[in-house]
Amino acid sequence: MRRIAILTSGGDAPGMNAAIRALTRKAIHEGFEVFGVERGYLGIMEEQFIPLSNRSVGGIITQGGTMLKTARFPEFQNEDVQKKAYDILKAHSIDHLIVIGGDGSMRGATSLAKLGMSTMTIPCTIDNDMGGTQYTIGFDTALNTVVDAVGRIRDTSNSHERVAIVEVMGRKAGHIALKAGLACGAEIVLVPEKPMPLHDVCRHLKETQIRGKEYSVILVAEGAYNSGEVKSYIKEHTEFDPSLTVLGYLQRGGGPSAFDSILAARMSETCIDLLMNGTDNRLLGYIDGHIRPISYQEAELLDFPIQEKDYTLLSILSS
Amino acid sequence: MRRIAILTSGGDAPGMNAAIRALTRKAIHEGFEVFGVERGYLGIMEEQFIPLSNRSVGGIITQGGTMLKTARFPEFQNEDVQKKAYDILKAHSIDHLIVIGGDGSMRGATSLAKLGMSTMTIPCTIDNDMGGTQYTIGFDTALNTVVDAVGRIRDTSNSHERVAIVEVMGRKAGHIALKAGLACGAEIVLVPEKPMPLHDVCRHLKETQIRGKEYSVILVAEGAYNSGEVKSYIKEHTEFDPSLTVLGYLQRGGGPSAFDSILAARMSETCIDLLMNGTDNRLLGYIDGHIRPISYQEAELLDFPIQEKDYTLLSILSS
Amino acid sequence: MRRIAILTSGGDAPGMNAAIRALTRKAIHEGFEVFGVERGYLGIMEEQFIPLSNRSVGGIITQGGTMLKTARFPEFQNEDVQKKAYDILKAHSIDHLIVIGGDGSMRGATSLAKLGMSTMTIPCTIDNDMGGTQYTIGFDTALNTVVDAVGRIRDTSNSHERVAIVEVMGRKAGHIALKAGLACGAEIVLVPEKPMPLHDVCRHLKETQIRGKEYSVILVAEGAYNSGEVKSYIKEHTEFDPSLTVLGYLQRGGGPSAFDSILAARMSETCIDLLMNGTDNRLLGYIDGHIRPISYQEAELLDFPIQEKDYTLLSILSS
Amino acid sequence: MRRIAILTSGGDAPGMNAAIRALTRKAIHEGFEVFGVERGYLGIMEEQFIPLSNRSVGGIITQGGTMLKTARFPEFQNEDVQKKAYDILKAHSIDHLIVIGGDGSMRGATSLAKLGMSTMTIPCTIDNDMGGTQYTIGFDTALNTVVDAVGRIRDTSNSHERVAIVEVMGRKAGHIALKAGLACGAEIVLVPEKPMPLHDVCRHLKETQIRGKEYSVILVAEGAYNSGEVKSYIKEHTEFDPSLTVLGYLQRGGGPSAFDSILAARMSETCIDLLMNGTDNRLLGYIDGHIRPISYQEAELLDFPIQEKDYTLLSILSS
Repeated sequence: MRRIAILTSGGDAPGMNAAIRALTRKAIHEGFEVFGVERGYLGIMEEQFIPLSNRSVGGIITQGGTMLKTARFPEFQNEDVQKKAYDILKAHSIDHLIVIGGDGSMRGATSLAKLGMSTMTIPCTIDNDMGGTQYTIGFDTALNTVVDAVGRIRDTSNSHERVAIVEVMGRKAGHIALKAGLACGAEIVLVPEKPMPLHDVCRHLKETQIRGKEYSVILVAEGAYNSGEVKSYIKEHTEFDPSLTVLGYLQRGGGPSAFDSILAARMSETCIDLLMNGTDNRLLGYIDGHIRPISYQEAELLDFPIQEKDYTLLSILSS
Repeated sequence: MRRIAILTSGGDAPGMNAAIRALTRKAIHEGFEVFGVERGYLGIMEEQFIPLSNRSVGGIITQGGTMLKTARFPEFQNEDVQKKAYDILKAHSIDHLIVIGGDGSMRGATSLAKLGMSTMTIPCTIDNDMGGTQYTIGFDTALNTVVDAVGRIRDTSNSHERVAIVEVMGRKAGHIALKAGLACGAEIVLVPEKPMPLHDVCRHLKETQIRGKEYSVILVAEGAYNSGEVKSYIKEHTEFDPSLTVLGYLQRGGGPSAFDSILAARMSETCIDLLMNGTDNRLLGYIDGHIRPISYQEAELLDFPIQEKDYTLLSILSS
Repeated sequence: MRRIAILTSGGDAPGMNAAIRALTRKAIHEGFEVFGVERGYLGIMEEQFIPLSNRSVGGIITQGGTMLKTARFPEFQNEDVQKKAYDILKAHSIDHLIVIGGDGSMRGATSLAKLGMSTMTIPCTIDNDMGGTQYTIGFDTALNTVVDAVGRIRDTSNSHERVAIVEVMGRKAGHIALKAGLACGAEIVLVPEKPMPLHDVCRHLKETQIRGKEYSVILVAEGAYNSGEVKSYIKEHTEFDPSLTVLGYLQRGGGPSAFDSILAARMSETCIDLLMNGTDNRLLGYIDGHIRPISYQEAELLDFPIQEKDYTLLSILSS
Repeated sequence: MRRIAILTSGGDAPGMNAAIRALTRKAIHEGFEVFGVERGYLGIMEEQFIPLSNRSVGGIITQGGTMLKTARFPEFQNEDVQKKAYDILKAHSIDHLIVIGGDGSMRGATSLAKLGMSTMTIPCTIDNDMGGTQYTIGFDTALNTVVDAVGRIRDTSNSHERVAIVEVMGRKAGHIALKAGLACGAEIVLVPEKPMPLHDVCRHLKETQIRGKEYSVILVAEGAYNSGEVKSYIKEHTEFDPSLTVLGYLQRGGGPSAFDSILAARMSETCIDLLMNGTDNRLLGYIDGHIRPISYQEAELLDFPIQEKDYTLLSILSS
């Protein structure tokens, strides 16, 4: 019976558990034996393999986080460590390793693939900043969390504070800020890909006020600005005294949205089907509404940055 | 200045307000004058036209329901009524009518188009049962509502009741039941497209228990069975005493999910862009991740039923 | 070292896990050894005792349901069974048994107390229908769940359906219906304690419409009417075609509200403090904002029915 | 017909709209004419009186914020301004002014009362920091918001970050931090009333880790520390790299919890009943589970600080 090992790596994201459950049950259904590796790549080195059964993945589908835990393990960039990991996987008779995570996690899988390991990668990070896919599991859930939070903040719009700054995650990309901005009707979105000087932000706020808007929401991507500095600058250069909310890890929590949960199920199914058909070392990319196997090399080259037209649309709709 | 009128028709759905806001602001940005028609097609007959401005659609993006209200108006199938509606629209100098709703609403738009009116239709219903599009605005929100509800019901899984029946909407289609079932990990899904005799349901429940599952959730599409009868049958023919939840209009409420809100924004943008380019009498279809203009005739023929493979996947994953 | 055993019994309620955690940690802090009994009174008979530590109750505070599971066990009304249970508890050197549950659970504790067992009861049921206390843990959470659900149903108020019926739990009492009705502004509340003929309901609906209300919500306590019959009657005797939602076990799920979680912590603290001071065989009653030990006999006699003035207030505020 | 004016003042809080609705409908039921004053005390000066009817307060019960808006107006501490306000109220034939807000708002009412105006104050602020009452409307909702947020942050507990800092509101008091800490099981709570040096926080974190806890949540009351400095200090003096979430105005938003909504209804009823019985110039205090009229002088003196025993209980339960 062929053996599959599953690990989750990097920052956790809603939907990781849904993927673990779906991979396990689909793989068992197809005749595989399934193991979970705890704490990502570190867990390989520490030989933390646990057998997974249909029952052991029961009840996790709607839980945030990951039952397999995750850990930072920068040492895995070292080729000796990779080699040792390969040897350990082979010693445990693991035929295929399935990695659930972001781009750092995929690079780990790529390294092991070069050594001869059969791997697959399921894209899973709230930041939606991976090559090779237009979408990563967890992003939709994070957007809903941000939209819900901004909705609550807008409730106090009748209060004396007229500008609210909300800092969101996204690492070096503005995906969360821009899409959440469209979804919640933010007046201004500050993303790293489209630098906007703070004096333009102030001018924009004043114009918004003149147009009769009672309230402005500014979404600040963590990669664009220090949100505390945005607050200070606006307070100093306008008559506004903005409130500040830093959503932080709130965005990583919660059970997966229906979209993320279903995508986790489908990608897991495709992943096992591909392995059965002899295809491996692929990222499961989500492109134009379809799940496609993308080679790791292609994934590195295939970039899906934020779309200019989303930015333009947001500015039209916030008028 | 060209004039646009917007109406919402049929059952309301989360995202209708987001579409009204986006259509209004985009149209005004492009130089149109915009009016809302209250209470759907009935409102045309009663000449309930209200001017819409950037400010009058402020603050509605995250609200459920529709600020333009909606109404049943079966009389609109009558050609004389359609003609009168056409005349009224012309008397008010309306150049384009944008209809937000489901298939009944699209048929109304088709009728007016035949009389010479320039129309567009934005697909918006929680049931996802329209021709010409793989997706209707509101469906994602409804799925999230169902998943959240089932999650709460599962919380009581340690209680003595071991089977929970949850009735969901969907009219004659099983889209909500099947997709929500995948998303929440339901054990059994009863949809009209795949009739399952109740004695098979009972057999399945017993097998599930033998496999060691402590709890089973059965999602019943309203088009498949009377959920009360499912409950009675199971109680009579097994040792289980199922609990029953009928979600009803709960599924229509709430603010739109990020996905629905963003899609409403993008479809609205495309809608106005198409009108400006001289294309009209189209449904905005969502196909393979892209928004495409679909002629009403084509939309009638292009059906997207529930997918067999989703059904199979669900049964594998519920093992 | 004295030994405490904890069990949860009857229908589960949000806050049971919070109480298990607080009892365990407080008791260990005071030098007790703590055991959990699985599946309520049945678990005593089956000797399902598991040791509880500070770590084993970690992470459960916000979870719905009960980690100790619960079960129906009507056989416990039999004196022989009670005696056997007493013997088993003594054989396991249990000094005190703490029961978390509703009135049926308290009766079990009373029986064991009569045999000489030292017991305590923490009131925990969503129905708020116990003697000896004005409040039971879980009730506040259930109210918030109902209010949230009704809020979503109201969102569709612009739709053509003008009357929504929502069936809520409460067993033979109207606590949930009446308090949730006040909290969400229901137009009509049907509770077993104040029978209202259905023709009065119809008359009331018509008057409401005349007063200009666009929408009416009717909360039906499960103990008052079959909600399906209320729907049929209204449809037959008025022009309204009500929608129906049956919340069912949705009301039992979800993590505990802040109020329920804090009360669980405080009652647990008081419970252990009382045992240390030699007081036992008491219900922890919540009376006039304070936690008070109530003897089981007193609890049987001390009834807190729904308040007439709440009913009057609701009818004034729904005008 | 006697005239009542209602205003909301200071920071808004969930439940303000529920109080406006209940006051209006109860007062109209009792034969009063009711007006709303927009933007708090500023609105008196600007004579922004709007008539309120049963219909105009429809549909607001579950909405956050306040339909009457609120504003800062420090000039109202000036006696000349108070006198002018008094004259304006009299010119509009206002018999009674009902103020909904926190302690600053009550001081405004006290000033007008000294000039001869008949007033009442409904306590409404999320901070729960008013004299004369153990509870202010909005506090329970804010607690639930914080508990929900911390629950999501805990979901990521399997991630590599082991310490999460969450900054909450509360002005100079630690009510929100302490009660939310009890409700969500926070490991450490930093409140202004019990200063804890940061090196003690670090020591506590290390001990927690040694006890086997995988994750620690620190709630920081805004009045106790700058949360960014707490983060920096811990990062510098331990091996932990804490995540930071600043909830900000998120805590003010959302519809009122059932508890807040019901209390708003009851306090409103009592308020109008008292005015009808000739009692005025009172704060509606919530003391030991009962609503009591408290004279403004008494309210100034009657302080309900955070309870030492809650702090002790939290530290026992976080073990």
